This record gives sequence, structure tokens and C-alpha cells, in this order.
Amino acid sequence: MRFDVLTLFPELIQSHMGFSIMKRASDDGVIEVVTHNPRDYTHDKHRKVDDTPFGGGVGMVLMPQPYVDCYENVSRLENSVTIMMTPQGEPLTDGISNELAQYKQIIILCGHYEGFDERIREIIKPREISVGDFVLTGGELPALCLIDSVSRKLDGTLGKIESAHDDSFSDGLLEYPQYTKPRVYRGLEVPEVLLNGNHKMIEEYRKEQKIIRTKQKRPDLYEKWKNKQ
Amino acid sequence: MRFDVLTLFPELIQSHMGFSIMKRASDDGVIEVVTHNPRDYTHDKHRKVDDTPFGGGVGMVLMPQPYVDCYENVSRLENSVTIMMTPQGEPLTDGISNELAQYKQIIILCGHYEGFDERIREIIKPREISVGDFVLTGGELPALCLIDSVSRKLDGTLGKIESAHDDSFSDGLLEYPQYTKPRVYRGLEVPEVLLNGNHKMIEEYRKEQKIIRTKQKRPDLYEKWKNKQ
Repeated sequence: MRFDVLTLFPELIQSHMGFSIMKRASDDGVIEVVTHNPRDYTHDKHRKVDDTPFGGGVGMVLMPQPYVDCYENVSRLENSVTIMMTPQGEPLTDGISNELAQYKQIIILCGHYEGFDERIREIIKPREISVGDFVLTGGELPALCLIDSVSRKLDGTLGKIESAHDDSFSDGLLEYPQYTKPRVYRGLEVPEVLLNGNHKMIEEYRKEQKIIRTKQKRPDLYEKWKNKQ
Repeated sequence: MRFDVLTLFPELIQSHMGFSIMKRASDDGVIEVVTHNPRDYTHDKHRKVDDTPFGGGVGMVLMPQPYVDCYENVSRLENSVTIMMTPQGEPLTDGISNELAQYKQIIILCGHYEGFDERIREIIKPREISVGDFVLTGGELPALCLIDSVSRKLDGTLGKIESAHDDSFSDGLLEYPQYTKPRVYRGLEVPEVLLNGNHKMIEEYRKEQKIIRTKQKRPDLYEKWKNKQ
């Protein structure tokens, strides 16, 4: 999977990719993350990428020319999708990550400052995705969330040590409670059922816990899940 | 505002803070971000922080002792809140960021691998927050989203160049379309109303656009907004 990220702050993307599981996936050739800076496509000597908004208002808006030219210069693979990270997009979900994992290339547009000139949307026509109903200083953290979430779905990213299979949301429910050593910690014991080696009982206990937990913490997800049963 | 971040990958937090608006807020003393590594609180020579789950299953679970000891070692300021980043938490919203911006200290617990031993939750009793219904390899990106989103609310983080006032969600609606120079780009013109200098008309146009856009892109938000009118 190739990720091409358009950003005015390529260091924010690159520095993150140097650590942890993302680094391993990158070293193993499972993913490749390439950054492109619209600032390299400006024509004036100040390398200006933004300007004040027409109609007034505080903040700076990203000008269309550097962004569109930068985008059009990205080599396109077959089976490619373009995504704009923006609070106006559809909220990212586990289901969308599964869907995106089918592509060979994801081109990601990161905004910064007050956002994109509307004509960037009109010309590029990206799929717009948000990571939630909050605002950030730029699209770089959302882009990294998307890259991480999609990469987890690819064969070879997670070793035997990790697994996406039992994650929250994989079946529409939150994950069951996890316990590891020691068996008793500060007087708190691991539930007996997890220690008796009866796999059928363990499975039932975990399923039940997932349902209880989802109902309690995320009644909205619980309702969706229940309607599908 | 002081952020204390408990993480096994402090580099992921620190490297991000070296750039852009977060760096400026940090240099200006508006925010301070300190990392604490539970691995420094292990007692064995392998500095082990995780182990296999009781009851079986793939993945490694974070052991309670290093995390709880690390947490208890963080100096507590008055007016402090502890947050665990987890897909099981309540989804982060602009409203929650506003609320969190009132604290003087936010202690953030980042998981990794298959997640926390349940007793970490039981002992620390953190507020649990998620950035969305998707799964990541760790809580570091969500922690950075939270730090960024809360920092934007603090006086001194955003200069005159940026503004949180007109952002998406600040009034329950998505942001209006933005336009900057040039007036015509690839045949696409800036809407006439934004050029005529009539501030009342501009304001009406933008309000109308926010409503249209929210209705079209996020019918769920539109319904919530409409019910409040």
C-alpha cells in the first residue's frame, strides 16, 4: 500500500513514521509513505501558499494553485483513491478503514490554517474524511490516524504479537476486558472464569462482557448492534 | 496548561511537539508537554511491560504494576484530570475540548498492543476518551489529537493568523466555504457576494452555506442543530 501525503509540514508525517509498528510496516515494505509539499509548487519568491479570505474574516486560506499543481504531480497507480482530511468529512470508522485497505494507493490531502479554498474541493473531488467532531491545527494527525488504522488491516503489519481480529468495532461491539499477570494485583483478582481453561466458558464470558460494556459505554453502538441480531 | 503523557513511545509525542503551532505554543509557555514511560517503573531486568492475556487470545496486554506506579509518580497540580485514550471511551468532541481547556493539568494514559489490564482502569479510574470508532496501534495519535484540540482553545496558542471562533462545530454547524486569491482559478470564480463588501450579505450567505453544507454532509449534526433552534 502506498500513501502519498500532501502536506505543508512533511516532518510531522515523516517523524511519526520512524517509530513503532508503522516503522516496522514501512521497513518490511508493507506500506510506503511519501510526502509532497505544495509549497514546492509555488511560483513566487516568498513561496506563499495561503492568503486572506475573500469576504473578510480572520485566518488564512490555502490557495488553490500550489495544492492543485502538487496533486496533479503525484504519480497515480491503478486502484487509487484521494482523500481530504477535513472536519467536514464523514467520520472515519473501522468499516471505512477496511474498505480503504483494498486500494493500492491512498493520496491524502492535509489542510492547515483556516482550510482549503473551496475550488480545491471542486477540482480534485476527493472523498472527505474526518476523525471526529473536533478541530485540529492541521490534517496531519488525522492523516496519521488514517494511515495507522488502514495499515493495521494489511497482511504483514501486525505480527503474531498483535491482532486486529478481536479489536473493538470488528463485530460492532467494544472489546472485552483484558487481564494479564499477576493474578492478584493490589487485592484485585483476575476473574475466575479466565483461569479455568474452559474455552467455551471463556468465550461466553467475553461475548457477554462485550455486550454489557458496549451497552453501558456506547448505547448508540449497542442499539446498532442489537438491530442487526 | 500542563500535559503529562504516559506512553511507552515518548518519541512519538515529543517528535510531534517540535513542529508547527504546537511548537509555538510550547515555546511561548502556553502549554507544557511532559512524557513519562511506564517502562522506567518495571522491576525486572528485561523491563517487561506486557504479558499474554489470561484466558488466551493473541496479543499482549499491558501489566498493571508499571503503569500504576508510573501514574502515581506524576506530580499532581490542583485542578487536574486524568484521561485514558481508548476506543472504548466517549468520542472526543469540540465541546469536550472546551471543557478540558478549563483544567490546569491533563494526565493522559496511552495504551499500546492489545490494551490495558482492566485493573489499571479500576485503580486509576480515568475518564475514557476515544477519537473515533476505529482502532490504532497505540494511544499516542489520539493523545496528540486531544492535546492539539485542547491547546487551540487556550489564549495565546492561536495568533491573529488563526482563529478557533469560526471553526466547524463551534456553533454546531460545519464551516462555510472559504475562498482566497485568485478571484478566478481555472475558470472557477469566487462567489460574487464575497466581493461586494456588504458585510450583512456576506454574513447571511455564510450562515446559509453552513446550514446547507451541514444538512448535506452531516445530517446527524444538522438534526441536532435544528432541534436547538
